[in-house]
Amino acid sequence: MVEQESNLVIAFQGELGAFSNLAAIKFFGRKARLLPLPTLRDVFESLLNDASFAVVPIENTRSGDIGETIDLLHEFDCKIIGETILPIRQCLIIHRDSNLNDIRKVTSHPQALAQCTKFLGSYGKNWQKIPAYDTAGAVKIIAEEKLLDTAAIASELACEIYGMKLVMKGIEDDYSNMTRFIIIAGGDKTTEDTKSASRRKTSMIFLTAHKPGSLVSALRCFSDRDINLLKIVSRPISGRHWEYSFYVEFEGSIDDKSSKEALKELKGRTSSIKLLGSYSHDKSEI
Amino acid sequence: MVEQESNLVIAFQGELGAFSNLAAIKFFGRKARLLPLPTLRDVFESLLNDASFAVVPIENTRSGDIGETIDLLHEFDCKIIGETILPIRQCLIIHRDSNLNDIRKVTSHPQALAQCTKFLGSYGKNWQKIPAYDTAGAVKIIAEEKLLDTAAIASELACEIYGMKLVMKGIEDDYSNMTRFIIIAGGDKTTEDTKSASRRKTSMIFLTAHKPGSLVSALRCFSDRDINLLKIVSRPISGRHWEYSFYVEFEGSIDDKSSKEALKELKGRTSSIKLLGSYSHDKSEI
Repeated sequence: MVEQESNLVIAFQGELGAFSNLAAIKFFGRKARLLPLPTLRDVFESLLNDASFAVVPIENTRSGDIGETIDLLHEFDCKIIGETILPIRQCLIIHRDSNLNDIRKVTSHPQALAQCTKFLGSYGKNWQKIPAYDTAGAVKIIAEEKLLDTAAIASELACEIYGMKLVMKGIEDDYSNMTRFIIIAGGDKTTEDTKSASRRKTSMIFLTAHKPGSLVSALRCFSDRDINLLKIVSRPISGRHWEYSFYVEFEGSIDDKSSKEALKELKGRTSSIKLLGSYSHDKSEI
Repeated sequence: MVEQESNLVIAFQGELGAFSNLAAIKFFGRKARLLPLPTLRDVFESLLNDASFAVVPIENTRSGDIGETIDLLHEFDCKIIGETILPIRQCLIIHRDSNLNDIRKVTSHPQALAQCTKFLGSYGKNWQKIPAYDTAGAVKIIAEEKLLDTAAIASELACEIYGMKLVMKGIEDDYSNMTRFIIIAGGDKTTEDTKSASRRKTSMIFLTAHKPGSLVSALRCFSDRDINLLKIVSRPISGRHWEYSFYVEFEGSIDDKSSKEALKELKGRTSSIKLLGSYSHDKSEI
């Protein structure tokens, strides 16, 4: 990175202890300053001001692509400089002065409660389920209000941040649940990382005419050169319902000779192209 | 439909009054019996037992494709027989014995509260925000517990079902927010609808080898015949991380001559194909 680690400000959506916070630590380490923000739009806007980088979710194995992130990538002047894949391990967390036998209620974001249906159906079947704004915020409430009869479901990091007691880890139904996060910077920022030789993946967005063959014609720019497509997401274009733009990831760097040729040809076959950057492929298998 | 309307049982995920309930009414009218269920998986399973049809969300203009629905379409023996597009109009709802001046709190699913950020930041800026399991459930609580100081954010239908007072309609930030729902039946069911001449759209899932050109090779089966692709979603295959299957929608019916030819060719270019059915295209613009 061009900046000293201590000067790094990393924005993410959610409370301290959210899974995006965990992803930020995985990518930048523990020295970076963190900027938790309420919405994804706030996170993208922060790149114009205080934040050096931002960490945002783009895809979850269970719920799929995060359309809002892809639309914001289209709207804002930004680029992708990296990615990191995180397993979503939900933990049962109680107050440090409490014991599991005292627990009568459990609180978390409705989605996290839903992710632990099997566990809550057996172990916590008599517990009252209380929805919360977010997972880490549920732990914060237990800490601040010293709730001794209530457990929270959240990340191990949230437990650590608020000094609570971790009772069980990995209580989610689907152990293969993972989220892929991308690391973004403002469009005007130059970083050493984007110039390294290790980048082996490129993201872009393009628009094509809504007629038969236009998508295939665009994709052939890649397949004719043996460039492997890693991902393709169609998104409705705001204001033109059920017309689509395409978010595409392919193997290789923008600087590769074949990529340059493909992108040159693609210009003639699409109505608009936005290059989002090349970066290292996180091939972690969990 | 082959069955009498009164014998129809329509499953959906959520409480009575949920947006899926609204979609069911839009498609089947008000005479069908409704079967609200806790999870999307429960809804797909109900097609093996009690339910004649189910109504499930597949795509939202804001949050994108609903990966879980697409995975369940892959997993279960089912077919798509129709679709309906619904604008997501959030309403401010209070107890019928209450007045807006008495309101101090507002409750709904965190996502619905987030969808009304601008409204709540101005009109309800001093109201305490209370997360709830779901939008319709929030109205139910206000009705059952006779909460006179709390407003709920939910659909107009939820207001009607629980006999509450609608104060404002359309308080969401994004007025173009819409959800597309599909209507599904068990795979063994024959319906007149699927044989009608009006069906002009087909859904399918296929798997291709993870190598350059295999997706383009598959899509060319359509473009070579001037068949228009309406949607393409890549989904990770469970257990084989970051390998993908493709959910595709194209214009035309399975019974069209060109579709038959395309599908025959596609068999030779993919490792697996699942046809989900042909149905009428909802081209409603809101």
